Formats: sequence, structure tokens, C-alpha cells
Amino acid sequence: MPAPAVLPALKECVAKGVPAAVVISAGFRENGEEGRKREGELREWLGGQPIRVLGPNCLGWIRPSRRLNVTFAPGMPQAGNIAFVSHSGALAVAILDWAQERRMGFSLFASLGNQADITESDVLGAVACDDETRVIVGYIEGVAEGRHFFETLCETAALKPVVLLKAGRSEEGARAVSSHTGALAGSDRAFDAAVRQAGAVRAGSVEELFELARGLASQPLPRGRRLLVVTNGGGLGIVSTDAARESGLEVAPLADPVRRRLDALLPPTASVVNPVDLVGDADAARYSNALHAIGPSAADALLVVLTAQAATDSVGVARAVIGATRGWPVPLAGAFVGGARVSAGARALEDAGIPCYAFPEPAVKTLAGMALLAERRAHPPETPRFTVRPAEAREQFGRLKAAGRSQLGMLDLAPLLDSYGIPCAAPRPAATAAEAASVAEGMGFPVALKVRSPDITHKTEVGGVRLGLRSADEVATATAEMLARVTAARPAATIEGVLVQPMVEGGKELLLGMVRDSQFGPTVMVGFGGIYVEVLKDTAMRLCPVPVSEARAMLDELRMAPLLHGVRGEAPVDMRALLEAICRFAQLAVDLPELAEIEVNPLVAGPAGVIAVDARGRL
Amino acid sequence: MPAPAVLPALKECVAKGVPAAVVISAGFRENGEEGRKREGELREWLGGQPIRVLGPNCLGWIRPSRRLNVTFAPGMPQAGNIAFVSHSGALAVAILDWAQERRMGFSLFASLGNQADITESDVLGAVACDDETRVIVGYIEGVAEGRHFFETLCETAALKPVVLLKAGRSEEGARAVSSHTGALAGSDRAFDAAVRQAGAVRAGSVEELFELARGLASQPLPRGRRLLVVTNGGGLGIVSTDAARESGLEVAPLADPVRRRLDALLPPTASVVNPVDLVGDADAARYSNALHAIGPSAADALLVVLTAQAATDSVGVARAVIGATRGWPVPLAGAFVGGARVSAGARALEDAGIPCYAFPEPAVKTLAGMALLAERRAHPPETPRFTVRPAEAREQFGRLKAAGRSQLGMLDLAPLLDSYGIPCAAPRPAATAAEAASVAEGMGFPVALKVRSPDITHKTEVGGVRLGLRSADEVATATAEMLARVTAARPAATIEGVLVQPMVEGGKELLLGMVRDSQFGPTVMVGFGGIYVEVLKDTAMRLCPVPVSEARAMLDELRMAPLLHGVRGEAPVDMRALLEAICRFAQLAVDLPELAEIEVNPLVAGPAGVIAVDARGRL
Repeated sequence: MPAPAVLPALKECVAKGVPAAVVISAGFRENGEEGRKREGELREWLGGQPIRVLGPNCLGWIRPSRRLNVTFAPGMPQAGNIAFVSHSGALAVAILDWAQERRMGFSLFASLGNQADITESDVLGAVACDDETRVIVGYIEGVAEGRHFFETLCETAALKPVVLLKAGRSEEGARAVSSHTGALAGSDRAFDAAVRQAGAVRAGSVEELFELARGLASQPLPRGRRLLVVTNGGGLGIVSTDAARESGLEVAPLADPVRRRLDALLPPTASVVNPVDLVGDADAARYSNALHAIGPSAADALLVVLTAQAATDSVGVARAVIGATRGWPVPLAGAFVGGARVSAGARALEDAGIPCYAFPEPAVKTLAGMALLAERRAHPPETPRFTVRPAEAREQFGRLKAAGRSQLGMLDLAPLLDSYGIPCAAPRPAATAAEAASVAEGMGFPVALKVRSPDITHKTEVGGVRLGLRSADEVATATAEMLARVTAARPAATIEGVLVQPMVEGGKELLLGMVRDSQFGPTVMVGFGGIYVEVLKDTAMRLCPVPVSEARAMLDELRMAPLLHGVRGEAPVDMRALLEAICRFAQLAVDLPELAEIEVNPLVAGPAGVIAVDARGRL
Repeated sequence: MPAPAVLPALKECVAKGVPAAVVISAGFRENGEEGRKREGELREWLGGQPIRVLGPNCLGWIRPSRRLNVTFAPGMPQAGNIAFVSHSGALAVAILDWAQERRMGFSLFASLGNQADITESDVLGAVACDDETRVIVGYIEGVAEGRHFFETLCETAALKPVVLLKAGRSEEGARAVSSHTGALAGSDRAFDAAVRQAGAVRAGSVEELFELARGLASQPLPRGRRLLVVTNGGGLGIVSTDAARESGLEVAPLADPVRRRLDALLPPTASVVNPVDLVGDADAARYSNALHAIGPSAADALLVVLTAQAATDSVGVARAVIGATRGWPVPLAGAFVGGARVSAGARALEDAGIPCYAFPEPAVKTLAGMALLAERRAHPPETPRFTVRPAEAREQFGRLKAAGRSQLGMLDLAPLLDSYGIPCAAPRPAATAAEAASVAEGMGFPVALKVRSPDITHKTEVGGVRLGLRSADEVATATAEMLARVTAARPAATIEGVLVQPMVEGGKELLLGMVRDSQFGPTVMVGFGGIYVEVLKDTAMRLCPVPVSEARAMLDELRMAPLLHGVRGEAPVDMRALLEAICRFAQLAVDLPELAEIEVNPLVAGPAGVIAVDARGRL
């Protein structure tokens, strides 16, 4: 029915006790001002009603196992164990057609449309507990409510493998999303962090999404990254090895006892290291014997590569592989290269639930994606093990707010960081040269001196910074000179005196930042400071809070990470203190929603701990 | 015939005037000591004979247009314009089978085997001039002679698009290559530089290799990176946009006049920016009208995306696309998503020579690969425009050799660099404090002082370096102290005095290195010095000589490149001087084969020029 008839019809449904409906009709949010108004009315009405609605402007949903197709798409996908959720109906229906040819089976398909009621999070939560579903894949253009999505994804991904393709990764793509659906895609980086932290993975292309789904639908997750390649073609063995290394899998040599068993079985021209090259004339028996000799524990994943040679019996090899690996607790994939001459064998493998590809590279990529998913899901749930003093922080906040402050500097933020247990080189104010000298004396030398003025942003440019002062006399002289110099340079500026701060020498300068994503709330970023962040954009981001394992993963992501572990014989930084600072900082962002953003720059990390040297923030 | 019978048979061939032969027989280099000896004999004999031989241990060659199959593989590939050269017979024959299904046509197929006579370079050179061949693709495991290969590739790639897949990219892969063929894969980085400098491209996977071949076989090269996407599905438009950005293509908005023409044609829900979204119910006429309105000059490449909707007429859309774009000078690709429901349309596109894919991403990747190839081929051939003094350099070399020197320091290398026009902070030796002071006086201040001793490598550790000395007195005192200190620290070391060197202050520290690759000869490397090269491995490499355009491309490749252009308001470095220094340095490597390796570190680049501050080398 046309859009204007939808709301009256839903009202009738409610009157008759209908518990759920699909609204396929377009003409809502995606359709100009009138449509937006119509959707607004629908949403408002739905809020108070017992009926659950999918849509409007969606394709509907399909439950193949019950032969129930509540969409306007023809046909019925094959029943299976993959649940597929999509923000785009057109894309989804085209993919279902494509999947039909690949004999991929679905437990549920749902097109979400404008999500006036049911969202991607609702469907994720539902399929997490659906017995028919083993793998969940989604095409996502943006999420309705980031934090809720993240929490649902955490629960769902703990139960089942989840693979998502998000459109709008690039700036141009995000613009296209917004003109396509009227929805904001949100920060792609925050989405990425959410998926990673929840223990799910993102696919890089439509094909990758479904290849991963296929692998996960029938194969176990690998327990590690060791890939074994068994082939009858040396060239394709090398191609497989290159692909494995590029996607982070290891092609380690087989253990000596296995090699000895293979040596006894195989012709002298065979290679028994890894790839295991059975040589071009390998028949089904040779594949079978080799796999039996190798056994189920030699690697974490197995790739069987077959090239069509003159006498190749692809079905025989497929049967041999299926028989020899029955019950192996590692994922298998095949790459049968040779078009029509191997297609019967490839089909036999797939019938036995072993995904089979036309070339080794996509097979390796799929196994690598499965390994990544396994690693992400293996992260143990952690609860923070540190104590913080939020009451103290909130009290200070109250004072700053009462004073009408919004831009915060190190003088404001040091007590806040301190109440969260983040060590600070806390500055102290001084109005005169004498006061500065006495403050410095109490602090211990060396100290740094900075002019204190709400009107001067670039202190260095007006001679408002002095470093490494080593005595009370030096401090007094420097203060007097600085105040005179800055007053001369900026006669109109209010100058409140100077800040005296303990000097921090040595160590690596890092940056710790927090911004609130419009979708996903507080996010924390860590990176190397200075030109590294500016030129290399060498930073890692996560949603807050951040468990220690994620803090460590953030540091591992940095290209400059080796500097933390000590290069050229330097001592490594105090990793424990650094990880803790990241976690405490993220907790601060969670506990103090009034803090819009904060950046500690630099956070100096050295062998004996970390210390925040400067910070800026905004209420 | 078996291996031992090969040589006698070839002798008979020569006696009978047979000009060429294919040796399929295995049992040569790949087969133990006896095989290696047999191949040695064959090679030696072949050197003096008029017969040309492909093999041994190869599959042979096929010329489909003449229905000539000189291999032991059954069947006959479709005739076409793709020449395919392969180091692996097994891989190649499997691919030919796969290509058959894709209806890919070949002008020549050649399996090279052990290359006792005919090498990949010979075949490349031959197909470069073959009228039937439009595109050349190769599977390469290593090259017979790097420099010769590079030169042939330069000539070939200037005439025809060349795409190569090289196995052994990873260390593990290289090891597998060497156990597979007994050949050394050589440095993969040098191979990469050779392909790039010759104007060819490397494929990342077997599928990419052939998808690029398909695109290049029928479509023109793009003249730029602007991609236009026309679709009936918003979601797939976004997916295309993301893929384009990730592979370096631009999805720029269409020009206003084009948008106005489209606006007048399309329904109000359509999007006329880019992607052009014709909306789900787009029929063939709408595709045709839109393409006519867009015209041939709106972009450098065109991707037409079709998703199967209820009433989609894929053949109609294909015909509309073919008709509307006839004669367009830009490459086209299709992505028809929907399996069986769009396969007839996809086939119609392919019959018209427009490659069509199941999803947008591989289509975009292919167009991006074509754009890269076009850019590489567009590089104008350059001849060096600087003068150097090789005679002077050779004379110095003679002196160093005569003195039995092999490890060279800055004192030896500065005159050499100078004779190639590379500015140097040339050090001068001084035996005593007084002499050092007088040398420094002649040089101008500030100067640096370093102890001069063949026995001390790490000068800093023994207090053998002093920087920033600003007067003759300072120099005299520092020299006396240094000589005493170093003598005390290393009583056994021969101390020849000190080196006095002009101080170079400010600027960026780069590194300029040359090593001779076992396959490709002299290669030059540039990168940022210190931790950048150590931790980030931020370097670029090329084969020598290096034209200015390649020197510029090397700098552009560096992740830290923005530092050269000036960040935070710094002045940019003298780019012209830096590029010239790279080119001159590369020329030095070409002209002086006695120099095994040399590293200038640091080469300091500032706004007013570049200067070599230290260098090490080896004869």
C-alpha cells in the first residue's frame, strides 16, 4: 500500500492484535520533507504500541527453513546456517541471487530499510540466540545508535562469528551513504574500533564478506596462524606461501617426525617441508597417504591445492581429502585450479562442507580472516583492576563549571588526571619572580617556566617559555625577564604571572586523546607526538572503556611501536605504567561525560614510568 | 624422450638443419647432481649451435591462431591477443583451463622450464613485436639475468602493456622458489623497482593478473584517475566508491552542465552527482539516456553497476551500455550483481569486449591497475642533464686500490662524491692540536672534530667526537683533550690524529645508499635517517641509473615525505638539489663498478641545498 495508508493500516493491525508487521512501502524519510514528516509520525506512534515493525522502505525478511518469504523478492534462498542482515534491500536481493548459484544457505535474511522500529541491533541480538544460525553477516551503512550497537555486538560476537561489511569507509563513500539513506555514517574509525573490540571482523569487499561466511558456516575456527599447504604444483605452492605471508599466516616447516613419515611415502622429487609438494603426477592415493602421515595436529589450518594435470582425477583427490581429514579440528579449504577439468572435484569438496576456490589467494585470505576472528573472540573479558577517585574529579568539575570555564589547560587538568591516577608534572602558578623562585625550590630542579595568560596561545612565539632552569636564582631572573618581554610583545594581553613545572627529561613523547564520537561516544586515541602524529598519522583508536588487552593492542598497532621496546640499546619504556595510564584515561572519559574532549600531549613515557606534561581540554 | 636421449637427438636436429626445438623432458637441473651435470652439458653445447631450444623441463608453447600446440597439454586455448609467459608449466596449464571458461583468448602461450637457451627475456622481446599480441602477462619465479631482463622489459613495456605476477615475494615464498626451481629469486625489492621503472605493473594474485589482462585486451588505457560510477543500486554505488578510494581512483562530482542534463532526464529520487544512482527501477532506456547525457569526456574510466531487481532486463541494459558508449575513448567495466538473473547481460557485455564482474570491487581494482599502468608508461624517457667527472673519480679509485684499501670512510669518499657534483662537508685531517686549529681556521666555524683511527668504529663511545666548536682556541683545546682521552681509553689503537669538518646545522637527515643486487646490479635507496630508517623502514629503492622523474617518485613514496615539503611552517628543502644528488649518486654507482657499496648518512637536506656529512663505502 502507498505510504499515506501505512499508519492507518498499522493501527488496524494493533486493534486486531497483530504482533508484528513488515512495511515495504517507500515514501518516508528517504523521500523529501513530506516523507520525513510521515516517518516522524510513524515513529512517534510506534513508540507506545505493542506491534513490532520492520521497515518502512525495506525488502522484508525471509526464513528459508520454514519457506517463509515476507519480501517482494521472488524465489527462496537455500536454507542454511548463515544469517544475513542488510541496510540495502537492492544489494541484498542481488546477493541472494548470487549466493543461490554458490549454493550458500541462509537461516535468516532481513532487509532493515529505514529502521523506524526494528534496528540492526535488534536483529543481531535475535540471531545471536537463534539455533539455526551459526554465522552472522551484515551489510551496514551506519548504525542507529552506536553505543547500543556496540553492546549488542559484544554479546552477539561472543556467541557467534560476526562479519560485517560497512559502506562509507572513505570520505566520498560516507557522503554517498548520507545522500543514499539520509543517515550519518558516523566516524568510520570508531565503527572499526567497535567491531574489533566486540570480537567481530570487517570484510573488505562483498565477496570477502560471503567467502568468510562460507568458511565459518562449515569449518571450525583455527587455533593459531600456522598454515599447511599441500599441493601437486610447486608454482601454486609458492603463490600460496606469498599470499599467506601477506595476510599474516605462517607457513612454518613441518616437524621432523612428520617429514620423515612423508619422506618414506613420497617420490624423491617431492618436497616435505611446507608447502608439501606431492609433484604433478600425484593421484588421490598420494594425497590421502600424505594427509594421513601429516595428521590433524601439524598446523592450525590446511589448504589443499590441486592443479589440473593431464591425468588429474579431481573427484578422487577431493574424496581422498574428505576421507583423510574427517574429524580434524582445524579449518580446511581447497584451491582447485583448472576450470572445467577440476570443477567436479571442487563441487565434491563443497558438498562435504569444505570451501573450494579457483585460486589459492582467496582461500588463504578466508583462512586468515577466520584466524583473525578467532583471535579477537579469544580475548578474555577483563574488568579494570585499578581504583580511581571520581568523586574528587567531579568536585573539581563543579568548580570549573561554576567559574564558567570551558577551555581547560594543564593547571585545571592536572588535578583531574591525578585523581584518576595518571602521574602529572603538575604546574604551579606564581605571580612574581620571588614567588616563582620559591615555588621552584619546593618542587626541586630543574624546572620549566611558562607565561600564564588566557590571551596567549603560542607562548613560544612571544618568548613565554624557558626550559631547564636549575636554581632559584635562574628562576627568579628568568621570570622577571619573561614577564617584561611578554608584556612588551603583547601589551593588550592579561598576564597572570607564570607557571612553574617540574622538567621531564628523556623518555618518548606520546599523545593521549579523547573525543566523543557522535555515534559511539567516548573514544581514546594514542600515538607518538609531534611530527609522528602530524605527518605519519601514527595513532590507534578504541572505544572507552579500554581493557588492558586492548591498550596493548593499540600500542602494537603503532608503526613506531619498536621505539617503546627500546631500539639502539635504549631501555624499554615502563609498559605496565603506560598501559595503565591509557586504561585510566579511558575510564575518566566514561566517568565524566561533561568533558567534551581532552588531549594529553606530551605524555612522556620512560623506563621508570609515564608522566603527563601538558594537557588541554574542553567542557 | 628420457633426459639422456635429449642431447643426441638435438645433435641430429642440428645435422638435419632443424632451427628450433622444444625439450619437454625432465631430469635436468631440477633433478639432483646428475641432472645438474646433464643440464650443464646441454647448455655448453647449445652455446655454439644454430638451434634455439625451449626447455628442458617445460610444457612447450602454443600459438592458438595457427592451431599449433607444441605442448603435452590437451586442447587448444581460444585465439586472442594476450601473450602468456610462465615459469611454471603446471600453473600455466591449469590457468589455461580456467581461462577457457572465461573465454579469454591468447596470442601465444609459452612455458619456459629450465631456460637452458630461451629465457623469459627472449620471449618478452619476441611478443613485443608480435602483431597478434596486445597485452603481455607473465608468471615469473625469478629472472635469468636481471639487467638484461630489465632492459628487455623497458623496450617491451614501451610498446605493450605488461603485467607480471612474481612468486617469492615473501621470504618464505622465495625459499620455496629456490627449492622448486633451484633458481635464486633475487631481491624482490629490486624486481619491483625494475618492473616499475620499465613501465610495467605487478599483479598481487593470479586472478588480478588475468583480470588486468582481460581489461587491457579490449579496453583503452585511462588517461587519468577519475572514475564515474553509474548504477541502479545506491548501496553498490557506495561500495564502488569505497573501493575506488582504496585503490587510488577519484570519484569526483560530475560537472554542473552534465548534472543539469541528468536532472532533466531522471526521476527526482535519482542522484546525479557521482555515483549516478538511476534508482532501482531503472530500465535499459534510462541507462542509455543517462550515458548519452553524460558523454565520453566526463571521466577517465566508467563503471556500470547493475543489481538484479524484480523487473531487471540485464541484456537490455547491457545493450544500452554498449550502444551508448560506442567509441568512447575511456575504459569501461561492468559489475552485474545477481547471479543467474544477470548472467545473460554480463555475457552480452563481455561479448562486446567490456569486462564484467560479479561485484564492483574487482572491477574497480582492474580499472585502478590500468590507470597505474597508464601512468607508468606515460613517463617520458629522460637523459641525465648533469655533468660528472668520472675520470677524476677513477683516478682516485686507482690510488685507493693501489694502497690496498677496501673499507672507505668520508675522507676517502668526499673527493669521489665531489667529482660527481654531490656537495660534501669534506673533512680534513690534522695530526696535532695546532694543526687542527689552523685547518679549522681555514674552513670557517663552527666545525666538528672526530678522532681519526682505523681501529675505532664507535667514536662517540670513547669521547672521540666533539661538535659545534666555534674558535681556533676551542678547536686546539678540544683536540688535545680528545687525543689524550682516546689514547687512555684505547691504548692499543693506532691514532692518526683528528678530522676537522665543517658543521652542518639544521636541515633534514636523509640517507642515500647503493648496493649491488645479485640480479639487477646497482640499486639506489633513499630514506630518512636515524630511527626512521631503523624503525619505520621508510625507504624507496630504484635500479641505477635514476632519471629525475624516478627520483621524485622515490621521495613521494616515503611516508615522511611531507617533512621535505615543510610542516609546521618550516621552509621546504631544496627539492631540485636533492633530486639532482640522488641522480648523480646513482650515476656514480653505474660508472664505478669497483665500488661494491656506499652509504651517505646523513645527507642533510635544507632549504638552501643538500650536503653529504658522512659516508662509508666498500671496494
